[in-house]
Amino acid sequence: MSQLDFFNKHQETLDQALSAINTRGFWSQYPENPSPRAYGETAAADGEAAFNGLLGKAFELEMPGITGQVKGEQSPYGIEMGVSYPQVDIDVLVSAMKQETKAWRDAGPDVRAGICVEILDRLNKRSFEIGHGVMHTSGQGFMMAFQAGGPHAQDRGLEAVAYGYRAMKEVPETTVWTKPQGKHDPLVMDKTYHIVPRGISVVVGCSTFPTWNTYPGLFASLVTGNPVIVKPHPASVLPAAISVKIAQDVLKESGFAPHIVSMVVDTADAPITKELATHKDVKLIDFTGSSVFGNWLEQHATQAQVFTEKAGVNTVIIDSVADIKAVARNLAFTLSLYSGQMCTTTQAIYIPRDGIKTSDGQMSFDEVAQALSIATSKFLSDNDRACMVLGAIQAPATVARIKECEGLGEVVLASEKREHPQFPNAEIHTPLILKVDAADIEKYSEERFGPISFLIATDSTEHSMALAKQVISEKGAITLGVYSTDDAVLDQAEELAMDVKVALSINLDGGVFVNQSAAYSDFHATGGNPAANASLTDTAFVASRFVVVQSRRHQ
Amino acid sequence: MSQLDFFNKHQETLDQALSAINTRGFWSQYPENPSPRAYGETAAADGEAAFNGLLGKAFELEMPGITGQVKGEQSPYGIEMGVSYPQVDIDVLVSAMKQETKAWRDAGPDVRAGICVEILDRLNKRSFEIGHGVMHTSGQGFMMAFQAGGPHAQDRGLEAVAYGYRAMKEVPETTVWTKPQGKHDPLVMDKTYHIVPRGISVVVGCSTFPTWNTYPGLFASLVTGNPVIVKPHPASVLPAAISVKIAQDVLKESGFAPHIVSMVVDTADAPITKELATHKDVKLIDFTGSSVFGNWLEQHATQAQVFTEKAGVNTVIIDSVADIKAVARNLAFTLSLYSGQMCTTTQAIYIPRDGIKTSDGQMSFDEVAQALSIATSKFLSDNDRACMVLGAIQAPATVARIKECEGLGEVVLASEKREHPQFPNAEIHTPLILKVDAADIEKYSEERFGPISFLIATDSTEHSMALAKQVISEKGAITLGVYSTDDAVLDQAEELAMDVKVALSINLDGGVFVNQSAAYSDFHATGGNPAANASLTDTAFVASRFVVVQSRRHQ
Repeated sequence: MSQLDFFNKHQETLDQALSAINTRGFWSQYPENPSPRAYGETAAADGEAAFNGLLGKAFELEMPGITGQVKGEQSPYGIEMGVSYPQVDIDVLVSAMKQETKAWRDAGPDVRAGICVEILDRLNKRSFEIGHGVMHTSGQGFMMAFQAGGPHAQDRGLEAVAYGYRAMKEVPETTVWTKPQGKHDPLVMDKTYHIVPRGISVVVGCSTFPTWNTYPGLFASLVTGNPVIVKPHPASVLPAAISVKIAQDVLKESGFAPHIVSMVVDTADAPITKELATHKDVKLIDFTGSSVFGNWLEQHATQAQVFTEKAGVNTVIIDSVADIKAVARNLAFTLSLYSGQMCTTTQAIYIPRDGIKTSDGQMSFDEVAQALSIATSKFLSDNDRACMVLGAIQAPATVARIKECEGLGEVVLASEKREHPQFPNAEIHTPLILKVDAADIEKYSEERFGPISFLIATDSTEHSMALAKQVISEKGAITLGVYSTDDAVLDQAEELAMDVKVALSINLDGGVFVNQSAAYSDFHATGGNPAANASLTDTAFVASRFVVVQSRRHQ
Repeated sequence: MSQLDFFNKHQETLDQALSAINTRGFWSQYPENPSPRAYGETAAADGEAAFNGLLGKAFELEMPGITGQVKGEQSPYGIEMGVSYPQVDIDVLVSAMKQETKAWRDAGPDVRAGICVEILDRLNKRSFEIGHGVMHTSGQGFMMAFQAGGPHAQDRGLEAVAYGYRAMKEVPETTVWTKPQGKHDPLVMDKTYHIVPRGISVVVGCSTFPTWNTYPGLFASLVTGNPVIVKPHPASVLPAAISVKIAQDVLKESGFAPHIVSMVVDTADAPITKELATHKDVKLIDFTGSSVFGNWLEQHATQAQVFTEKAGVNTVIIDSVADIKAVARNLAFTLSLYSGQMCTTTQAIYIPRDGIKTSDGQMSFDEVAQALSIATSKFLSDNDRACMVLGAIQAPATVARIKECEGLGEVVLASEKREHPQFPNAEIHTPLILKVDAADIEKYSEERFGPISFLIATDSTEHSMALAKQVISEKGAITLGVYSTDDAVLDQAEELAMDVKVALSINLDGGVFVNQSAAYSDFHATGGNPAANASLTDTAFVASRFVVVQSRRHQ
């Protein structure tokens, strides 16, 4: 095959993605509906069977330097995973990957982009298998695991390919430079501009979104010419492993060394991320996880460009509403989805202690709290649906945190433990909603990861805004929602969002939720507050992944 | 006046600059020839008079927090400068600049770009005055000071404006997002994308190129919405001060606070750059100077994005030549220009000890050395021309270094002290050229800033390449020149350039020199080796100077 075959095959898709990032309207390459029409009659069953076929076995990848096997994933749904993964000697692997950098660099943007889109295409075809993998490592309900771990993650990957491709293509490959010299002959030079990758890229995954938060860095680095090591969270390896295997298959078919995409696995007991991240040849690091480790990387991995997404205090400000029931339903879904284990889930909800205006008249703080509590209870009243939406709690620490936080305020809605109809060992917990006073800032201004949120009684919407500004400036946030029927308040909210550099959602009361972002249209994090130093995906996320090396000579 | 007046006035210029960065062919907005036709009959005399009128006086700028006056510049030509500059309370200034960020942010890309180009236009009109300022602080000869400090610096500034403008304009201001919902009505959202500046930007200038190395960071930050503090080198304040004053004038005329561009001055005895660079509100730092300080900034100013240009060992490899005289003339100019005080001047020249092939047959190492020595002597034989080209040595440490380095090798060409026809106190020194063996790597692999270069006897061109690779990987370089009549060697040089991420010039033997780079066409540094972590100017240089804050709401 020709190296450009995949580029030719996917050129239209790439063009559409490039158009989508320019206009930022709705577009999606990968169907989010897991329907037989979109994925084939047998796709669901085949995918589940493929997933089951992986359990209890050694997962094989082609990498130099394999020294043994490592395992340790625990499904939050309680099934036995038992998958083991190759363990590698980092120095051997990195050295072997360096050897392949030239071939991958010389392939050029078109070949690399074609291969990246082919990888994404194959990932898409295996969305059910990957969905089960995401479900049984992250704890997400299957529908969410399929969508967020499959097509939505693939769209984020394609978005990164498009950004990287555009940035590279903005540099011409050659030029003729002709400088007039008055009456003399002009100076004429031929110039060539090479896109040169930074070096080895490491993508450090998280336990909750093992593909969605991994693909942007993986594809941004890969399309710009950097070999990539995926370092999954030890609790969520399988979806990353399947993804790396698919990438290796496509690379190999295209005549490249499969280990241009590799995987390094560790365990919670013997972590190796620090060693890997500070390796002298590692020049790019993408990280999703805790602020403590993200900040450590920013400060210590100074040999590399470091892109981080860390913790924050996502915020909603309620000033006034047209339809409190619609607002409460919308927020109930946000607080329930994946038990609040999204990096975008609202934690702090500021409401004036004197209540808010609604189209049905004034509503007291407690009435607002009650509306939210009732909407959440009602939404979760059907246990089957509740379990699908809530998913399982990924980490024991998060289960413990629910209990620990109960005393932080007055309980508006208690967290309940639920029984999953299929998985008796799954830890399923409904949201805990607490009422606190604005003065108790130390209670609500720390990230309390999991299904824990605070209704914060403030003096006024102005006070709500001031507190949100302070907390987000200091602790960061990825999402801010504001509810108001007053345009002046919405203008202030827009100012607040710009001040603290956070994405703003206004009056969401229908089928769009503050914790969801759409590839090609919504920037996920701004990179401008402590929650993240990078955005998925903007030009800054790709532009420093390569340098331009020019050569010039007289004609 | 309307805020868009300057944008309308300069839109064609901006469009041309945008086209130039896309094609990277020759283009220049600002005439490099200081001719009356280009600048006006009286421009030269007026500029000199304006410069003289500044001497011995207090230079005034509009900034909150002025606490006193500071002075201390010493002209390398020995004239009495005596200009004093306002000294400010950093906290007061930064706080006042933060207050103005909203207005400057809200002005938007068009207004800001228009103002930036107007500033550059006025800088251009004052190129003679600024040229004298550059000459008498940096020590450059007047012609170079005019060109590099005037039109070439202005072109680099406009290039940064164009890059910043393009990056901002690639984000649409608004979009309508319409997501189909099968048989139901689609979800429709209005989305707005705000370009939000990072914060306060600090541009730390150097003593040798007080405008050329300052304008890229200044204009990249300014056009993307960041208020900018220029922190000039204490030895080279005046050209920066004139530039800041012009920026303040234009800002004021446009209805903005003049201190959106400010200047903070210190002295060598009481430096304040560390304090300024680690101020919590400083989010962008551009630095040109020593590796020690540049590395310190990269490691300590972690609250900011840091763009550095540091030291390196610029390199030429001679394998074979068509015309040794032409090559020697070209290199003689490179080594002589501004006494080697350019960050692009060649220091290490690798030549096989067994000599090279020329079109006139084999030439021994010593014959090559001799050719270079003779060409340099001849080029500098006319003292008036020599003084114009050499300029004065900027710093006493550089004068001392010439002496210190004499013992590092066999002297091929001794450095001579010259008398300047007009300025008896000027320190004028011709290049020192030394012969060393490849084995003496510690001698030629440290940057020896100033008119000091090494002819390094290697085993072969292959050996030359290996040494260059090692030294540039470890110490960095901004320029690499290669001379060969063998295409295979040139291919290897191209590989070497990509490996160590350095710009390559091939067989320069005419009117283009390895130490010169042309705005819009040549990238100055790649940002990929230890000599610099940024490039003037690529997309990475501008993309992280702003973030995008979006808001969304249902239609």
